[in-house]
Amino acid sequence: MSTDKTVAYEVAVPVGGAPDVVFVGVGAIGLPMATRLKLGGHRITAVDPFPTARAKAEDTGLSTAASILEVLPFSGVVVVMVATAAQLSELVTTALGVGAVLPDQTWIVMSTVGPDAVRIEAGRLSAAGARVLDVPVTGGVARASTGELTLFASGDRDVIEEERQLLGCLGTVRVVGTAIGEGQSVKVVNQHLCSIHIVAAAEALALAARLGLDPGAVLDLVSSGAGGSWMLNDRGPRMLEDTDVTVTSTIGIFVKDSNLVATAADQLGADIPLLRAAQERYTRAVELGLERRDDSRVIETYQVEATARSDAGER
Amino acid sequence: MSTDKTVAYEVAVPVGGAPDVVFVGVGAIGLPMATRLKLGGHRITAVDPFPTARAKAEDTGLSTAASILEVLPFSGVVVVMVATAAQLSELVTTALGVGAVLPDQTWIVMSTVGPDAVRIEAGRLSAAGARVLDVPVTGGVARASTGELTLFASGDRDVIEEERQLLGCLGTVRVVGTAIGEGQSVKVVNQHLCSIHIVAAAEALALAARLGLDPGAVLDLVSSGAGGSWMLNDRGPRMLEDTDVTVTSTIGIFVKDSNLVATAADQLGADIPLLRAAQERYTRAVELGLERRDDSRVIETYQVEATARSDAGER
Repeated sequence: MSTDKTVAYEVAVPVGGAPDVVFVGVGAIGLPMATRLKLGGHRITAVDPFPTARAKAEDTGLSTAASILEVLPFSGVVVVMVATAAQLSELVTTALGVGAVLPDQTWIVMSTVGPDAVRIEAGRLSAAGARVLDVPVTGGVARASTGELTLFASGDRDVIEEERQLLGCLGTVRVVGTAIGEGQSVKVVNQHLCSIHIVAAAEALALAARLGLDPGAVLDLVSSGAGGSWMLNDRGPRMLEDTDVTVTSTIGIFVKDSNLVATAADQLGADIPLLRAAQERYTRAVELGLERRDDSRVIETYQVEATARSDAGER
Repeated sequence: MSTDKTVAYEVAVPVGGAPDVVFVGVGAIGLPMATRLKLGGHRITAVDPFPTARAKAEDTGLSTAASILEVLPFSGVVVVMVATAAQLSELVTTALGVGAVLPDQTWIVMSTVGPDAVRIEAGRLSAAGARVLDVPVTGGVARASTGELTLFASGDRDVIEEERQLLGCLGTVRVVGTAIGEGQSVKVVNQHLCSIHIVAAAEALALAARLGLDPGAVLDLVSSGAGGSWMLNDRGPRMLEDTDVTVTSTIGIFVKDSNLVATAADQLGADIPLLRAAQERYTRAVELGLERRDDSRVIETYQVEATARSDAGER
């Protein structure tokens, strides 16, 4: 298993007028990724149907297009960072519908869409002659901006090696297998753990408060020991702030990702009681109007119940 | 909040014929703790009703007694490392029943018994004139042996300071508060997280296998990132071994501790869906005959279900 990291660099690379990368989906995480690729010397066209996303991309000096149709025919790499499997499917349908010059294209799917979706869409693209890699990423917006994402890369090893410079602009490439879907499967396990660990941290800190302890002191006491987790350290402090705390990743993302984990597990008949419990908390947080808030605010689902019980007891 | 660590040392301290520490409960974790205190210069009498536990203690050079009655009247420190709240209650009843010279005794409750139990028993001991500290520990047998436990100490600050040399023989003293029960409360939160994180690791690695991935490779890929936890790193590798893997802490311990967390939460009306899901897995592991196995073997509850479903599908 390779753990190489190609350090991103800032150089002026002479390029022609045509893009060598079409980057589809320049949202919160896509835009800093596209910017890293530009810093790495690539000529980018950023594709996004949303005018505000395109405007932000143009502010950072990227060329933009509202649809992939505007850049076809195209020879080079298509990086896909759309939000959902449905958007990926629609993108592929659009590209294939105009008989794109796919033998000259390498598609790198970096969205988290689940193993089934990437297998289906990779199959359609491959049948049209394109090369495809399945490379979901983890690390969030902060690490996307610094080129320190972790990339779970699967697909043909020769194609991965051909794209190693490009991938290396974004972070550390971990080659997880040769089959399309393996990258997404690793991401499923990763999101399983992340989904649970955030809620576990919220449940623990809410319990600490109910026990009459200072949650901040408890966080300090337990986070460095056997109860510690990356999420407890990262999200814990934000759980102790208020609902308007800076958003690093939304509740909505974990509604999507915990559903994606549950769907993948259901198809395999895998038992996932802890993930189910976590998933329910994200859903409840949306019901409380927290969808666009930082995912750490899932702790409010515990506080609301504590308050409701307390109110009921007082009557 | 103090984070001092008094380093344990090996010196010959001249002492008289009487013990200065009565150590009650020299089981898997109690014996190495008592041995650390002896290395720290204390004269120990190890009390344990189980002949095999006493035999092991004698093998390490400790004096032993089958009941605390054999060492009463006694002036000094009583360290309590029994397994359950019921055993603590019985011990206190026994000691109080003979009108022990409690004004000369300091009791340090280090068992994990929950905040209510320690408050009740500390109340009885204090009424008889004893000084009491609530000091549950975390770190397991391995760290007990090296004097690297973490001690969540609560109680009168002067008494904690008086016992700092003794406590320092066992590990790092974290003073969590002045009220009896605060140490146990912090331990409740710690065990809440530990209970969930072990099962989360098992569920994730079982899911990885169902996804057709190599769970060992996935462990390597996800444990250093946002999905990481202390338990995933520590228990994960043992989950990938077989049922006879070396026992560091048993399933039985987490049945006890997850029940203790649930009881404390229930009394407060605190919502703990993730802990409930984890608790159920430990209970199921006992039903599978795994009570004395390493707690990492909770993963077998997932494997059994996968096998059962697979068998049903083949019929």
